[in-house]
Amino acid sequence: MLSEFDLIQDYFVTPPSSDPRIQLGIGDDCALLKPDAGMQLAISSDMLVSGRHFFPDADPYLLGHKCLAVNLSDLAAMGAKPLAFNLALALPEANRGWLAPFSAGMLDLAKEYKCTLIGGDTTKGPLTISITVFGEIPPGQALRRDSAKAGDDIWISGELGDARLALAHYWNELKLSDQDFAIAAKRMHQPTPRIALGLALRGIAHAALDISDGLIGDLGHILKRSGVGASLHADLLPAGAALRNFAHHQLRTQSQDHSNNKQREFTLAGGDDYELCFTAPSELRTQVLAASISSNTPVTRVGTIDSESGMRLFDAAGQPLALALTSFDHFSTP
Amino acid sequence: MLSEFDLIQDYFVTPPSSDPRIQLGIGDDCALLKPDAGMQLAISSDMLVSGRHFFPDADPYLLGHKCLAVNLSDLAAMGAKPLAFNLALALPEANRGWLAPFSAGMLDLAKEYKCTLIGGDTTKGPLTISITVFGEIPPGQALRRDSAKAGDDIWISGELGDARLALAHYWNELKLSDQDFAIAAKRMHQPTPRIALGLALRGIAHAALDISDGLIGDLGHILKRSGVGASLHADLLPAGAALRNFAHHQLRTQSQDHSNNKQREFTLAGGDDYELCFTAPSELRTQVLAASISSNTPVTRVGTIDSESGMRLFDAAGQPLALALTSFDHFSTP
Repeated sequence: MLSEFDLIQDYFVTPPSSDPRIQLGIGDDCALLKPDAGMQLAISSDMLVSGRHFFPDADPYLLGHKCLAVNLSDLAAMGAKPLAFNLALALPEANRGWLAPFSAGMLDLAKEYKCTLIGGDTTKGPLTISITVFGEIPPGQALRRDSAKAGDDIWISGELGDARLALAHYWNELKLSDQDFAIAAKRMHQPTPRIALGLALRGIAHAALDISDGLIGDLGHILKRSGVGASLHADLLPAGAALRNFAHHQLRTQSQDHSNNKQREFTLAGGDDYELCFTAPSELRTQVLAASISSNTPVTRVGTIDSESGMRLFDAAGQPLALALTSFDHFSTP
Repeated sequence: MLSEFDLIQDYFVTPPSSDPRIQLGIGDDCALLKPDAGMQLAISSDMLVSGRHFFPDADPYLLGHKCLAVNLSDLAAMGAKPLAFNLALALPEANRGWLAPFSAGMLDLAKEYKCTLIGGDTTKGPLTISITVFGEIPPGQALRRDSAKAGDDIWISGELGDARLALAHYWNELKLSDQDFAIAAKRMHQPTPRIALGLALRGIAHAALDISDGLIGDLGHILKRSGVGASLHADLLPAGAALRNFAHHQLRTQSQDHSNNKQREFTLAGGDDYELCFTAPSELRTQVLAASISSNTPVTRVGTIDSESGMRLFDAAGQPLALALTSFDHFSTP
């Protein structure tokens, strides 16, 4: 039988880090970190629950990747550089066939981002993955939610809506072609944390966050904490490749309204995108585009921060849009 | 309906900390910590699962206390001073009647130990509480598991076995008097993290850990990582008040063997004690006792670290004891 300690030893202990900031890793009551002199430590936790954040039969390699990716995405949104993470894991059983690919998916991504697993906890229970991630950032350079200013441009990294489109396919809300499903499913299962962009935006962006519950609701957090409002061009939002294909196909076969609404709905309120939404002064557009190029991450300008509170949506013709969209809420959403 | 964000605002957001090390708390993608110059950050995670670590109908105030207490206990075992913690919480429903006492139990203890809640995550799911706790410690002073030396004394703080005794009562393995049950249940539900003792043992103790899965198994971690063995005087182990009462009563009414075995079993392998087990050079006994007095925490000397590997148990007469006891393991234990 695989014991708790064998499980940790076999799947989660990696060779001692040569990083001088990681002074003690897995195996003691605590890990010991020593951030570089003068640096702030950025800390974030995300918990993923089976049947809620992922399907119970999810591919364990992809699941390991995603659990860490969504945590790294929070570091990206702060402009922090990944350093280390803790993993608390509740498992129904200690199954090598599941643990091996799960830990490989997680540790492959960890290696890519030089983020070392330094400790955690393992217990029996309904499959639940709780990660706390640590990154470094020089004081005063964090991309906070409370720093948007009236007149700022609003930008989005990458593309939105494909993860939600894949979910719609899984839920039989719609039917995708095999090719579109493959594209959308990859976005759903393997989000790319926008770490390089977050680092490149230090000193340029005013406010930032990562889009996990849907743009409308997440941008709302920036507006609320910054005491500002926004005008958003719904039809400028960068839709994912699968969503664009789907919308185009719908356009030809169904009413224009329906297809448009699906694209708008999923880009504005899809969720699970893990793209960055950030604001920056309009006089820094060149610097934003330079950051986009240096980080190899596309960005799209989609609106403006207003001094007037509230969020105003506009269509491609500049006409106000009235959409009743809400963001995902774990307790208000069924 | 109580939304995810109302839930956090109403029960977990506390006034901004005046602690300059806590630069940003709840409400952004990450919290920002800045440990004092030159300090190491000690980090530990413990996850508690309903039906596994606590009864589904557990008193929420006591549960809030215990979840944080077991995490603080890991800081104590390292000799670290509490600074802050993150809470990831999966809840079946957003119920004010449960959340109010749960957060009060947790935040009352947090206040007592000056440990600030700086962030986390909230989601719907089977009741699971995952905390990551942060403490400070000067480099080189951590009480690690790999530092026990042959010739060291082995010490235990407080008393052992009462938490396991309470569990035995809940499980109908035995029947306690109301008075003993009250004592034992308090030990099970409200462990005291031995922070003051851990701090006082800096520079005195060689190795330390907190006893969560039972002394035998936990001490085994120190032995393994330090490459040493131990001789342990089973009948010198400080049994809890309820366990002593129970054993005394059994002595008068049943065979001596049975009562002795219960006391030995629960002190050696009970679990859920959250006392410290530590080793210190025998020439520092006076300093250990001074640390005990200054921290107002009783300590008992119970054995010796040997260069020979393995754990040897002795009874009150100094005779070898052969007990087949195992520590709690989440995957090997039913």
